[in-house]
Amino acid sequence: VRRDRAEQLLRDVAAGSISPEAALAGLTAEPLAHLPFATVDHHRALRQGDPEVVFAHGKTPGQCVAVATELARHGDGFLVTRADEPTRFALGAAFPEASVNELGRTVRLAPSTPVVPVSGTALLVTAGTSDLPVAEEAAETALASGVTLERLTDVGVAGIHRVLSRHDLLSAADVVIVVAGMDGALPSVVAGLVRAPVIAVPTSVGYGASFGGLAALLAMLNSCAAGVTVVNIDNGYGAATAAIRTLRASRHPSA
Amino acid sequence: VRRDRAEQLLRDVAAGSISPEAALAGLTAEPLAHLPFATVDHHRALRQGDPEVVFAHGKTPGQCVAVATELARHGDGFLVTRADEPTRFALGAAFPEASVNELGRTVRLAPSTPVVPVSGTALLVTAGTSDLPVAEEAAETALASGVTLERLTDVGVAGIHRVLSRHDLLSAADVVIVVAGMDGALPSVVAGLVRAPVIAVPTSVGYGASFGGLAALLAMLNSCAAGVTVVNIDNGYGAATAAIRTLRASRHPSA
Amino acid sequence: VRRDRAEQLLRDVAAGSISPEAALAGLTAEPLAHLPFATVDHHRALRQGDPEVVFAHGKTPGQCVAVATELARHGDGFLVTRADEPTRFALGAAFPEASVNELGRTVRLAPSTPVVPVSGTALLVTAGTSDLPVAEEAAETALASGVTLERLTDVGVAGIHRVLSRHDLLSAADVVIVVAGMDGALPSVVAGLVRAPVIAVPTSVGYGASFGGLAALLAMLNSCAAGVTVVNIDNGYGAATAAIRTLRASRHPSA
Amino acid sequence: VRRDRAEQLLRDVAAGSISPEAALAGLTAEPLAHLPFATVDHHRALRQGDPEVVFAHGKTPGQCVAVATELARHGDGFLVTRADEPTRFALGAAFPEASVNELGRTVRLAPSTPVVPVSGTALLVTAGTSDLPVAEEAAETALASGVTLERLTDVGVAGIHRVLSRHDLLSAADVVIVVAGMDGALPSVVAGLVRAPVIAVPTSVGYGASFGGLAALLAMLNSCAAGVTVVNIDNGYGAATAAIRTLRASRHPSA
Amino acid sequence: VRRDRAEQLLRDVAAGSISPEAALAGLTAEPLAHLPFATVDHHRALRQGDPEVVFAHGKTPGQCVAVATELARHGDGFLVTRADEPTRFALGAAFPEASVNELGRTVRLAPSTPVVPVSGTALLVTAGTSDLPVAEEAAETALASGVTLERLTDVGVAGIHRVLSRHDLLSAADVVIVVAGMDGALPSVVAGLVRAPVIAVPTSVGYGASFGGLAALLAMLNSCAAGVTVVNIDNGYGAATAAIRTLRASRHPSA
Amino acid sequence: VRRDRAEQLLRDVAAGSISPEAALAGLTAEPLAHLPFATVDHHRALRQGDPEVVFAHGKTPGQCVAVATELARHGDGFLVTRADEPTRFALGAAFPEASVNELGRTVRLAPSTPVVPVSGTALLVTAGTSDLPVAEEAAETALASGVTLERLTDVGVAGIHRVLSRHDLLSAADVVIVVAGMDGALPSVVAGLVRAPVIAVPTSVGYGASFGGLAALLAMLNSCAAGVTVVNIDNGYGAATAAIRTLRASRHPSA
Amino acid sequence: VRRDRAEQLLRDVAAGSISPEAALAGLTAEPLAHLPFATVDHHRALRQGDPEVVFAHGKTPGQCVAVATELARHGDGFLVTRADEPTRFALGAAFPEASVNELGRTVRLAPSTPVVPVSGTALLVTAGTSDLPVAEEAAETALASGVTLERLTDVGVAGIHRVLSRHDLLSAADVVIVVAGMDGALPSVVAGLVRAPVIAVPTSVGYGASFGGLAALLAMLNSCAAGVTVVNIDNGYGAATAAIRTLRASRHPSA
Amino acid sequence: VRRDRAEQLLRDVAAGSISPEAALAGLTAEPLAHLPFATVDHHRALRQGDPEVVFAHGKTPGQCVAVATELARHGDGFLVTRADEPTRFALGAAFPEASVNELGRTVRLAPSTPVVPVSGTALLVTAGTSDLPVAEEAAETALASGVTLERLTDVGVAGIHRVLSRHDLLSAADVVIVVAGMDGALPSVVAGLVRAPVIAVPTSVGYGASFGGLAALLAMLNSCAAGVTVVNIDNGYGAATAAIRTLRASRHPSA
Repeated sequence: VRRDRAEQLLRDVAAGSISPEAALAGLTAEPLAHLPFATVDHHRALRQGDPEVVFAHGKTPGQCVAVATELARHGDGFLVTRADEPTRFALGAAFPEASVNELGRTVRLAPSTPVVPVSGTALLVTAGTSDLPVAEEAAETALASGVTLERLTDVGVAGIHRVLSRHDLLSAADVVIVVAGMDGALPSVVAGLVRAPVIAVPTSVGYGASFGGLAALLAMLNSCAAGVTVVNIDNGYGAATAAIRTLRASRHPSA
Repeated sequence: VRRDRAEQLLRDVAAGSISPEAALAGLTAEPLAHLPFATVDHHRALRQGDPEVVFAHGKTPGQCVAVATELARHGDGFLVTRADEPTRFALGAAFPEASVNELGRTVRLAPSTPVVPVSGTALLVTAGTSDLPVAEEAAETALASGVTLERLTDVGVAGIHRVLSRHDLLSAADVVIVVAGMDGALPSVVAGLVRAPVIAVPTSVGYGASFGGLAALLAMLNSCAAGVTVVNIDNGYGAATAAIRTLRASRHPSA
Repeated sequence: VRRDRAEQLLRDVAAGSISPEAALAGLTAEPLAHLPFATVDHHRALRQGDPEVVFAHGKTPGQCVAVATELARHGDGFLVTRADEPTRFALGAAFPEASVNELGRTVRLAPSTPVVPVSGTALLVTAGTSDLPVAEEAAETALASGVTLERLTDVGVAGIHRVLSRHDLLSAADVVIVVAGMDGALPSVVAGLVRAPVIAVPTSVGYGASFGGLAALLAMLNSCAAGVTVVNIDNGYGAATAAIRTLRASRHPSA
Repeated sequence: VRRDRAEQLLRDVAAGSISPEAALAGLTAEPLAHLPFATVDHHRALRQGDPEVVFAHGKTPGQCVAVATELARHGDGFLVTRADEPTRFALGAAFPEASVNELGRTVRLAPSTPVVPVSGTALLVTAGTSDLPVAEEAAETALASGVTLERLTDVGVAGIHRVLSRHDLLSAADVVIVVAGMDGALPSVVAGLVRAPVIAVPTSVGYGASFGGLAALLAMLNSCAAGVTVVNIDNGYGAATAAIRTLRASRHPSA
Repeated sequence: VRRDRAEQLLRDVAAGSISPEAALAGLTAEPLAHLPFATVDHHRALRQGDPEVVFAHGKTPGQCVAVATELARHGDGFLVTRADEPTRFALGAAFPEASVNELGRTVRLAPSTPVVPVSGTALLVTAGTSDLPVAEEAAETALASGVTLERLTDVGVAGIHRVLSRHDLLSAADVVIVVAGMDGALPSVVAGLVRAPVIAVPTSVGYGASFGGLAALLAMLNSCAAGVTVVNIDNGYGAATAAIRTLRASRHPSA
Repeated sequence: VRRDRAEQLLRDVAAGSISPEAALAGLTAEPLAHLPFATVDHHRALRQGDPEVVFAHGKTPGQCVAVATELARHGDGFLVTRADEPTRFALGAAFPEASVNELGRTVRLAPSTPVVPVSGTALLVTAGTSDLPVAEEAAETALASGVTLERLTDVGVAGIHRVLSRHDLLSAADVVIVVAGMDGALPSVVAGLVRAPVIAVPTSVGYGASFGGLAALLAMLNSCAAGVTVVNIDNGYGAATAAIRTLRASRHPSA
Repeated sequence: VRRDRAEQLLRDVAAGSISPEAALAGLTAEPLAHLPFATVDHHRALRQGDPEVVFAHGKTPGQCVAVATELARHGDGFLVTRADEPTRFALGAAFPEASVNELGRTVRLAPSTPVVPVSGTALLVTAGTSDLPVAEEAAETALASGVTLERLTDVGVAGIHRVLSRHDLLSAADVVIVVAGMDGALPSVVAGLVRAPVIAVPTSVGYGASFGGLAALLAMLNSCAAGVTVVNIDNGYGAATAAIRTLRASRHPSA
Repeated sequence: VRRDRAEQLLRDVAAGSISPEAALAGLTAEPLAHLPFATVDHHRALRQGDPEVVFAHGKTPGQCVAVATELARHGDGFLVTRADEPTRFALGAAFPEASVNELGRTVRLAPSTPVVPVSGTALLVTAGTSDLPVAEEAAETALASGVTLERLTDVGVAGIHRVLSRHDLLSAADVVIVVAGMDGALPSVVAGLVRAPVIAVPTSVGYGASFGGLAALLAMLNSCAAGVTVVNIDNGYGAATAAIRTLRASRHPSA
């Protein structure tokens, strides 16, 4: 049960459009489904509001299909990340209506009821072409929450005019995700240009002394600009989740 | 010139309460003041909305007083961070009305016109007593933007009931800062309990294989919970700035 | 010659049920068998009480079968760890009665005489599904000493209620093994909930700045909770051996 | 309220020697005492059985005395670790009956009611003279739980006959703590000689490429002997706590 | 004997203005002077063209004065780097005509015959005020070769307009030295704006995960812009020497 | 449009050999061509003077051919680096006139108009046979700018006479690139022999504690000789670009 | 020309058994043979006395055969190390009389004239079966200098009696090579038992926090026993060369 | 009892010059003397032949004097290393006849009977003036065994002619110790010039990315020259001990 659907149920009860009993049935579906190799938590979406996500890394294609099937059975949709070629093929075959993103290595199924979209603008800035797989993972994660990220692509600091020429996009954003490898310099430049929080994603793009993204990670943690926070190397999923939380939480009723 | 005062000037012109000429004079004060050893940018607050901050590390007490004086001359107020004992003494003597925070190593002067406060709730969670200096730096940074952070103190995961017993505070927050050293485990637990974005601050508290906070930093970057972003070790200032941006940006007129 | 069988021989002599000569023959079997590429120490089990273990990593399937055959010839049973697919196949073919654990990459043959079981309860806690291979290696190692580990699976700290809901299992354990990757936070939480010693096993699960399990390892070494000790990354075998020693040694006659 | 005293109270009620009301009063003393800078948890000893420990690192002498006074007020005794010279002096002055260990940097006050001792033998092995401060911290921690550690000192592997000549002590131990710096080789040798669990403590003794104890830490984590677990560098407190848990937990009534 | 003076001697002989014998005497002064603790190589300047430099780190003030005296005796001048307060004082007292740079920790004595200046423009760009000591060391090193570095100060990427506004200075340079700490992002931006080679100097400015300049060093080695080379952390001397070699070598007669 | 061709166009206008209108047409070709997955910047060569380079790492053969085709369409030529076997094959098939360097993993197409060569001598020194792939990448990069590097091969310091015997080549160079793996000692020796700037390239050649080139990188950054700057591990492209900038920039008209 | 053969030639001249002219011809063979991809130095053996060694890593099988052929042409013999399967096959086919060591990955051809053997005893001690490939490389390297290493195999410190039981072998050695992975503890124990120099070889055997042999390397560098020196991880060749130098140099005529 | 004196005793018995009883008395002096804080092993010199060495690091001046007194009481002499200023003063006062080396931080007392000197030549090569303290420690260690090291000082590779010009010294050595910091390049050059074994000592001399000597250590472990072994950073004592063992062991009667 997704949180937005739960809220709708409660509003429907308040409005008298459905009976409390019917609402209760919808809310009290079994929260934990037990598969032989995993415990699927159907109430997590309710508690947290984040999309149902399956990390495929370390799971067989068959296991991924099984977990996804369990999630889909309740109409919640799902997002599978870090899915390798065989897993993407298996999920694509099992769920023909799902979106398979080859570059981002994700498979996403929309829930049966559309997600209530979060308002606000999240901008996704990438430094180079090689950073696109991480950006795609972020974009799919946002879509699973009903948010389409704005894009500003291939604007690394070696050609600083590229990012400066799109000041309009930057200043309109409520939150900015910046994906960069190598020297990890782009978030510092962007954070100096905007008032919004900047979520920096180091990528493992680079060779030699990039040490698998460590160089970019350290650079971002030491950003000379204020307002930059950082996620793990190549963690497009984590950045998008934090961005969605930023948009969503700051607009919830109690604010 | 602070951004909120600039906006007020423009509104006053729109309302006819001051003349355009007077507003222009207020807005076009010299943006850059040149000291022998630094360039003070009076328009930065206007462009970015962040408070005027002076990092005292690597500056003499005399230099800090000079920069602070230049900032105070325009009525903007200031925040000096990483101020050692002699610097705190010198600033306290020069600005008797300033707030000196011994634990957080900061000196803060309120601007002549009160800051328009940002709405929303930012919660500051700390794992142990030794993390307090970093927490204090965060709190002072927030105060410089007119925000008082809520507090949840000494709730490390070794006694998990401590953080669980304050679920009310956690779920009411729009953004959560979690400060922890040693194993850096607290942000993962907190992020699993809230819907808000979590900004994790690793501290250098610990000994042996904590390697000056590296252990906590890596743990936070690898958080098994969604929605966690990370700042540099002991960087209370950076965490607070990102939190304020989260509150502020998500509420600006264009949203 | 296993230690428990040696003790039985001596008790039999004391009881007059076998002659000293027969006991002597049983005890003085050649302690070292020389293969061209290894020295099999048949008395190690006698001296230490630990099971006969063959690390398959770096050995050919043929070598593993040869060593296992030498061990099995004396009826001692064996445990082969880190066995890749071909080695598991070869051992399975040579020893049809052996237990092959695909996930844990182990092959185990029970000794001809059942092991005298160790009393006490050892609990095996795992944070996520991806940690299962390491957990399986630990479980097989314990079985080789006649101990069946209790299990608490998929209880990572991102959903803290999962581990809290099984306080009964936790408090009943005499020793707890906690297997976790990523942020390595689970042992700290568990050690705060139990009175038993906690043996933490970091796993290489994670990507980016987990650096092959280093993040979890450092977090565990810096646990803010008392009573946590740590073994090498992915070392399920080592954790189980230490746990069995804990159960066994604390109950030996001299205590 | 210490756990053993709580158990005594309950036994007294069962035996009719005190009234339930008196027992209740003894048990329900306020569990949390609030000082301005810390929250003293009087029930932790009850829940966990570990001694009340104050880490002095990062606290002023005055703060340490205040926390210690709060603990002593209930008759529970305390152990202050990592106490520098001024803190040791201040505590020694405030609590003349306390034991000050200069080498181990600890101050320990016995509780008003003697601790019910844990049975079993814990052996403390040290490689060199320079490892003694860490060993002393371990010894004081054990004393706070009523356990006197056996000692085997200055038996580094460069003179292997030193440790071999005391096989009697080694084989009699229920748990062994091995403290070593430099190459960290001693735990591997010891674990090959005993059947008990071995808790290894790397120390920061060494220079150059010991990198503050990292060399010993890595060596111990990679011990070629079974049954070795490791704690943080210089963490004598942690090793002793784990050792006490091993002795205590394995003998509790449910076993 | 400096190389330029040697060349002048040879030209004088060619022009008949001095006798070959006199020239020979000037050229064959004892190349190595032996002090008890060092070997002063008077011909190094001749062979390499670099200034005579004494690294004071690890030498006593008295030793520094002795070496400097030996160098000054031949009229060659000297540059002492990494000179602490007492060494600067001692050298200043011994050589009243020397230039003492407190910030750069250098003492420089001009040679008796002015150095033939190298043509071309070397630009020194610094990111922040805290990078100035390293910049000063570079500037003094250049002065010892007769080159005055152009300056562009306090132009870190967090305020990207600062560096962009001085495109004139950047494009006029034949070689650019960029000094930056923290995220080390400035060299990438500068190298994207100029056609000249860029020599990047990481500084140890920063805290936490800057790890003493490692973050900036790695970022610079992984610069996404072409034409960037890197020297050691805080090595202003090395950067200036490389810059001077760039100017000088590319203009020598054989080119 | 390459910079040298642009300068030629302007000189032709000045000389009256072509009309301003024709020159304008040549200069104002669309600077940015949009492919679905990259933005090709035809004016970069004009702004910077560096060759058009495509990093093939992380791109499919088809993408590389498409970008190369776009570049070749304007007659500018191209250099593709880090091209694996399939990419080299695809580019070789699409551009039969291109030079494929198997060892250096590059494919290079000469521009339709020959590049105006840069004067001066750049020397490429390699320590061992295994360093040749990196050297080849550097050589191809230089060729793309019209520069043929001089070579001094297989002169590692273990046989110091090899490099000493070619003092003629060393002293004639205006800039020296030194490629070395393992101990990275060669640049220090070379820099002590020449007056030119030395650009050091560490290679990943070595095993064990070379840690993928880290040993050589650190050695070079700590060179005891003056005038050494360093690029990333295996970065032959970067070294050559810096060397060409050194030759070119120091000879431009404004100097 | 090997050094021992050169010395023999000179002695023959002294004895009048060959003419000076014939000796000269034998000594002045072309010292450097130029292959397209390498420079074969036939005089290195003369200068240094070390065997002719070809590191196959990074060379094709064809290149290895070509260099080996060039070496064999002069009757000097050769040793090829780090030869993968195809290279071993190619060399075995080209030189049927060569010794191929599959485990050690070497191919060795004896010279046409037997090497004058070095006197003295070198002992090769290995900790475990997995360390054998490195030991074999050492053994083949010694054989190429005419030395057969004594062996003590599978004597890791987890069973300390294994190494102690062979005190005879240890005390008879003039130099000891100790090969060990994991905790790298064996050299410390051995160096405490012998008077000879101990050359320690860390191996990459281990997993998790062995970090490819780093743990053993650091342990060996920090050995608590005197007289231990260390070579690179898995560098059996280097250890044997140093051992042979120890035996040989200490016996040359000038001593 | 030193080994050489023991051998002399036995030879005297064989020659009839002393009675067996007298010899026995001399040999069976109490091997272990117990001080409150250390166990002094008087037989270590007998077993190993190495000098009696006390590491002062981590001991108080008083403890050092006590251990030294115990050693001197038997006439064996001693060497105290890593002695800080107060310890050197205390030892100098207690033993006026001892040699205090301020630079090397050692105090050495000759034994009452002169050591039988080891034959052969050990050469000590240092790269720079700052490496002298480590070289002095090595020299004093050798003197304690009766060996005076030959010296070749200040011959770093930046001026390669310095080391080349002393080929005579190099080729005459039976073993060479090379002490170098920064890039650690000197051992590679030296090992290419000599036939003797080379023991490399990295020093912590350097700044920035030398990381306390790590750069030199890694360079030395990866030496491209054969015959180099390495000891810990700044470990002059260890290098000298290994060198003495090399000279001594290779000449013992059994060889």
